[in-house]
Amino acid sequence: DHSKFEIELGRIKKDKGVELDADLSVDALKEVCAAYLNVYQREVGEPFPSRPREQLDRAIRAVFESWAKDRAVAYRRINKITGLLGTAVNVQAMVFGNMGQNSGSGVAFTRNPATGDNEFYGEFLINAQGEDVVAGIRTPMHIDGIKEKWPDIYEQLMGIRQRLEQRYRDMQDVEFTIQEGTLYMLQTRTGQRTGMAAVKMAIDMVHEHLISPKEALQRIKGEQLNQLLFPILDPQAKLQALEAGHQLGVGLPAGPGAATGQAVFNSLDAELWKKQGKKVILVRDETVAEDVAGMWAAEGILTSKGGMTSHAAVVARGWGKCCVVGLGELNIDDANKCFTIGGQSVKEGDFISLDGSTGELLLGQVPTTPSPVIAGLLHDDANARDNEVYKNFVEIMDWSDRVRRLKVRANADTPIDAEKAVKLGAQGIGLVRTEHMFFEGERIWAIREFILAQTPQDRQKALNALLPLQEEDFLGIFNAMGERPVTIRLLDPPLHEFLPFDEAGQQEMAHRLGISVAEVKHAVAEHKEQNPMLGHRGCRLSISYPELCVMQTKAIIKAALAVESKFRIEPEIMIPLVASRKEFDFLARIIKVTADELIKQKNSLLRYKVGSMIEIPRAALLADEIAKSAEFFSFGTNDLTQMTLGLSRDDANSFLPNYRDKKIFAFDPFEQIDEDGVGSLMKIAVSKGKSQRPDIHLGICGEHGGEPHSVKFCHDLGLDYVSCSPYRVPIARLAAAQAVLASEDEHADLDVDDL
Amino acid sequence: DHSKFEIELGRIKKDKGVELDADLSVDALKEVCAAYLNVYQREVGEPFPSRPREQLDRAIRAVFESWAKDRAVAYRRINKITGLLGTAVNVQAMVFGNMGQNSGSGVAFTRNPATGDNEFYGEFLINAQGEDVVAGIRTPMHIDGIKEKWPDIYEQLMGIRQRLEQRYRDMQDVEFTIQEGTLYMLQTRTGQRTGMAAVKMAIDMVHEHLISPKEALQRIKGEQLNQLLFPILDPQAKLQALEAGHQLGVGLPAGPGAATGQAVFNSLDAELWKKQGKKVILVRDETVAEDVAGMWAAEGILTSKGGMTSHAAVVARGWGKCCVVGLGELNIDDANKCFTIGGQSVKEGDFISLDGSTGELLLGQVPTTPSPVIAGLLHDDANARDNEVYKNFVEIMDWSDRVRRLKVRANADTPIDAEKAVKLGAQGIGLVRTEHMFFEGERIWAIREFILAQTPQDRQKALNALLPLQEEDFLGIFNAMGERPVTIRLLDPPLHEFLPFDEAGQQEMAHRLGISVAEVKHAVAEHKEQNPMLGHRGCRLSISYPELCVMQTKAIIKAALAVESKFRIEPEIMIPLVASRKEFDFLARIIKVTADELIKQKNSLLRYKVGSMIEIPRAALLADEIAKSAEFFSFGTNDLTQMTLGLSRDDANSFLPNYRDKKIFAFDPFEQIDEDGVGSLMKIAVSKGKSQRPDIHLGICGEHGGEPHSVKFCHDLGLDYVSCSPYRVPIARLAAAQAVLASEDEHADLDVDDL
Repeated sequence: DHSKFEIELGRIKKDKGVELDADLSVDALKEVCAAYLNVYQREVGEPFPSRPREQLDRAIRAVFESWAKDRAVAYRRINKITGLLGTAVNVQAMVFGNMGQNSGSGVAFTRNPATGDNEFYGEFLINAQGEDVVAGIRTPMHIDGIKEKWPDIYEQLMGIRQRLEQRYRDMQDVEFTIQEGTLYMLQTRTGQRTGMAAVKMAIDMVHEHLISPKEALQRIKGEQLNQLLFPILDPQAKLQALEAGHQLGVGLPAGPGAATGQAVFNSLDAELWKKQGKKVILVRDETVAEDVAGMWAAEGILTSKGGMTSHAAVVARGWGKCCVVGLGELNIDDANKCFTIGGQSVKEGDFISLDGSTGELLLGQVPTTPSPVIAGLLHDDANARDNEVYKNFVEIMDWSDRVRRLKVRANADTPIDAEKAVKLGAQGIGLVRTEHMFFEGERIWAIREFILAQTPQDRQKALNALLPLQEEDFLGIFNAMGERPVTIRLLDPPLHEFLPFDEAGQQEMAHRLGISVAEVKHAVAEHKEQNPMLGHRGCRLSISYPELCVMQTKAIIKAALAVESKFRIEPEIMIPLVASRKEFDFLARIIKVTADELIKQKNSLLRYKVGSMIEIPRAALLADEIAKSAEFFSFGTNDLTQMTLGLSRDDANSFLPNYRDKKIFAFDPFEQIDEDGVGSLMKIAVSKGKSQRPDIHLGICGEHGGEPHSVKFCHDLGLDYVSCSPYRVPIARLAAAQAVLASEDEHADLDVDDL
Repeated sequence: DHSKFEIELGRIKKDKGVELDADLSVDALKEVCAAYLNVYQREVGEPFPSRPREQLDRAIRAVFESWAKDRAVAYRRINKITGLLGTAVNVQAMVFGNMGQNSGSGVAFTRNPATGDNEFYGEFLINAQGEDVVAGIRTPMHIDGIKEKWPDIYEQLMGIRQRLEQRYRDMQDVEFTIQEGTLYMLQTRTGQRTGMAAVKMAIDMVHEHLISPKEALQRIKGEQLNQLLFPILDPQAKLQALEAGHQLGVGLPAGPGAATGQAVFNSLDAELWKKQGKKVILVRDETVAEDVAGMWAAEGILTSKGGMTSHAAVVARGWGKCCVVGLGELNIDDANKCFTIGGQSVKEGDFISLDGSTGELLLGQVPTTPSPVIAGLLHDDANARDNEVYKNFVEIMDWSDRVRRLKVRANADTPIDAEKAVKLGAQGIGLVRTEHMFFEGERIWAIREFILAQTPQDRQKALNALLPLQEEDFLGIFNAMGERPVTIRLLDPPLHEFLPFDEAGQQEMAHRLGISVAEVKHAVAEHKEQNPMLGHRGCRLSISYPELCVMQTKAIIKAALAVESKFRIEPEIMIPLVASRKEFDFLARIIKVTADELIKQKNSLLRYKVGSMIEIPRAALLADEIAKSAEFFSFGTNDLTQMTLGLSRDDANSFLPNYRDKKIFAFDPFEQIDEDGVGSLMKIAVSKGKSQRPDIHLGICGEHGGEPHSVKFCHDLGLDYVSCSPYRVPIARLAAAQAVLASEDEHADLDVDDL
């Protein structure tokens, strides 16, 4: 048991007052050896063999025995590693790079792992072993140094580099040693790389006829592709900041890219400072719907609470905005507008920087550089379109689109987001969250009047004010999407989300609506819920207030009627939080009566669909019933995950990290679909839904729609589309192609020569 | 369409300024007739036929047509009414009870529907039609009046009474008319009855050889049996209160029986007033764990919020305490200690009364009478045991126990409740909620110290203080239960439930623990959750703090070791809120290591079981995995219902009444198991669980365990036991017998002669 030796070694070093990673004197080493021998004798029950041949035999046998151990057997079973005859044992001679100035060791990559450039890239130390290069005690030289010192060996390395790439058909990470002028290769393995490098290498290797486009697609991870989309912290500047000890902590990398700006502690300040032309980072314990304006104004968002699907994370990701959440050590003092972390204090106006791809919080202003992909796609920047990163991205997307079966839609709530989604490749909108439209500007007052209304007449008055605004929203979205399908979800959140919980907000509301503060407080208290996630929301709201459903249906249908002469349109109206067919039928009837009357008035032949979210376990279990009425299903896997696992995404962060440490969860179920639990409900729903309506249209609109493993699951499940936030659309397109390739689907008849 | 006539009639009455339920003058009646004829002509398109024969033909045809209508066909399909050839039409001559002093009409029951006494019971009016008796315009005479006036007819009625009971073998509700000295029976149907009457009649009819014990058991509803257990408002006094207009409102009948006392508005007052010898009703918007002492002190509990399974309802029902919840019109002003409802104001100290069987709130002190069943069973009251109600109850229970297959356990958290449960027939405890033990007296301080502890050492210190107390709790319960099985659930609620949310409580806590109020507030804020139901609770707590699980295991095993010489004991340790086998295994290992060491130390052979709650949908879906480790399952159908339906039981009351009005839900899923949704998950869990462990022991410990439909479902599902609050145990015993009889189970070989 090697760990016992390590412990022993540590103990001896400690006894001697030696730094744990420092070398020992010869005497001390002798002592270590003696101690090792003692441990061996105690554990094995006989002295360590002194004949080298016997030592070698035992070492070989140890490898074979480890192959047969329970743990290894279980590991192979769990990971479905089958069909192997056994293991092999490599017996190699030891080589030494530390035999003087004519020796040395190095590590290298066959291509540049940061940029993907086709150049030999590595580091080298004279008179040293491999560990010395990695340990960073001495500063290694650039690999080119070998060229000058030992041109022959350099030539040899170049040849080996080429042979390795030909053999493994991928960039290799190699270790080598030169012992007294002779080159020995110690190890080769496929090398880690940045997103930019991954994409470039994959495409280059296709053009070099080293791999096929299929292989190129399978080789790029979604997150690597993602790295191409977002501004990043300038690498040099970030390195300097790290070296200066300016890393204050690491939270969860919730929103992409990077951001730098001045710390502000509430949404109002964020908006004010932004108006003054300042760049700010909004720092909050957690964000709520009311913070949206401030979040929009900020360059980036930092929270101490919440997980990967907290409000801050979901909103920021939807916008493609940098966001770090759940940085638990952050101690925020809202009142005094400052935070402390690890003894460091940051006050309002101090510069901080966020790395959204690693979750790092850095002190100071670390400059960022924008993504040419975004500049080219979204901002029609001609220079950016000449950039190789942009071209590579477009090529990968083109290959993906030619392979995939799953359609990819986006979740978008505004015409701007809809346009963005189309530019990023979305083939439709899978989810328009109508509630986001209710928060904007003056509209919040109309919905607040609706909530406070004491009579149906007052409620109707408030809704009448909202109707033209909603109609305009949908008109904008329809115009942005053209013939592409658009799925609109009826109002979903509990009403208290529209009410102010702070004193100032309540006073403003009382003043504005001409009522007493007590009345406002009463309304807030009345709408407060113990577990709002399981409360009065979704279709339950529209069943309580059918006039809400009528207003939203009118807005959708009127907007569709206004554009139907321009292009073919068939809006999809989606009922959220359905748990029973009766709920669905109750609202579907209201929708149909409302819609059909408007359509008849215009002598139109407009068609529309009415479908159901499947986000409550019961809806999945009774999908056959619901499918008798619903024309389509969209899996709301955020809520379905919360309910199936009994796990609130807003609260889980207090124990999920512990769950991951203890290997109870292998991944965050809010990021990646829990196939065993949530997935099995989805399977039930698909099978039951199709049993009643074989052609039922099936999609997913939860956050999982942009996560590669989940996209593959949706592909295998036979869904028609995934829908995710606009900036995840490219990942979903790639993942959908990878799913085809992984399934060796019959659709995967892509050939090198076709491209 | 008859409703159109009704509307027309209402309109005419209104036009004429006539009370809606008053009679009209002859002229007005003519006008009504004319209006009716108009409606007919307008709707049918031809005048109303004037020939009587044609009128009769059409009336007969209308009946046949209604049989074939879509709605009727659907009704028969839904209610599985099959195998009928068609419907029959009865054509009867009209008889008139209003043809003078030699005529009259009456309604009667073949036995007393209130007491069950075997006496003819009814009311009679001379020179009147049947409607006049029912309408209450004239005061009818007692049925015995007929005996004096028309002895022959009375004799005839007595003969008919006997023939009807012989024919229908149940108490009949009849209507009759005497037309000029001749008796005509108009109608007979099975009569409604009180619980007391239902039980008495069923038993009497067995002894009269009219029905078999099987039939007797099938005839008594659980809620009727329940009525025998609780004190009731004195019927005469209640009637007076109603007549005086003292009914203030009707909430949900959450806790059984009746209560009268002075209104108090917080738990502290409830305790203080109780100490002063006063009887109080605790009035709250809703109750929380901290209110438990005040709830215990109160005679009854009244809340404006919450449903049938709200905290107040569950706790009160567990205690058999009267409780009315969700009385939404109640406007409570905590600060001024008063409430208003419908214009009536009630302040602290005013007497109010609750009827827990109807949900009524009454003004004033309405006296109650106790149940002889409870007096006999729980208080060893010899007089009560001579009471016929007590004897009937015992007989029904005896028959039930001889028929049923399902075992019945109780949910009990204290030795007192455990004893009570045994006396009410519980065969074990299906759920000991250990958290209730943490609230009692000084213990709350130990758990608060645990929560605030900054180091593992401080946490351990707090737990060390709790260990002997928990051990004592379990010792008491084990001693009360003897060899009967006891299932103990590890700590379940989120930690914030143990922290004070009010200013005064926070100050007390700061003072007591020697920390600042700010620290207390910080802890409270830190533990606050958006959706605590889906938060850091159940096994998640013990995984975060394994020392909690160690402490509770020690307490259980030490208590078991202390009694094992007295009787055979095998404690069942239950892990709550399990969503994955890994969670279960993580804690089961801790439990086993802890328990086995204690058992070894004592050289004992004590055995114990470790099982899992199935209360998260995922656990049901992955029950095969969990069953590989868990020795038993207990369905926590409260949480399973919340998660499967996405419905918070604390919040649902704001829209569930509307759902019932709109017939979206046929029943409250927190009262009766939703078989289609929750039930289908239970089926999956049972089948998957048995696939891995065929002899897995299965029970249910949710509130549904005492609800007859749900008990039947559990029986059909093949569970081994149901567990419910002690006072529901008799209902569960009866329902379990009824389930056997309904299933025509092979075990149902009970015969009249056997009893």
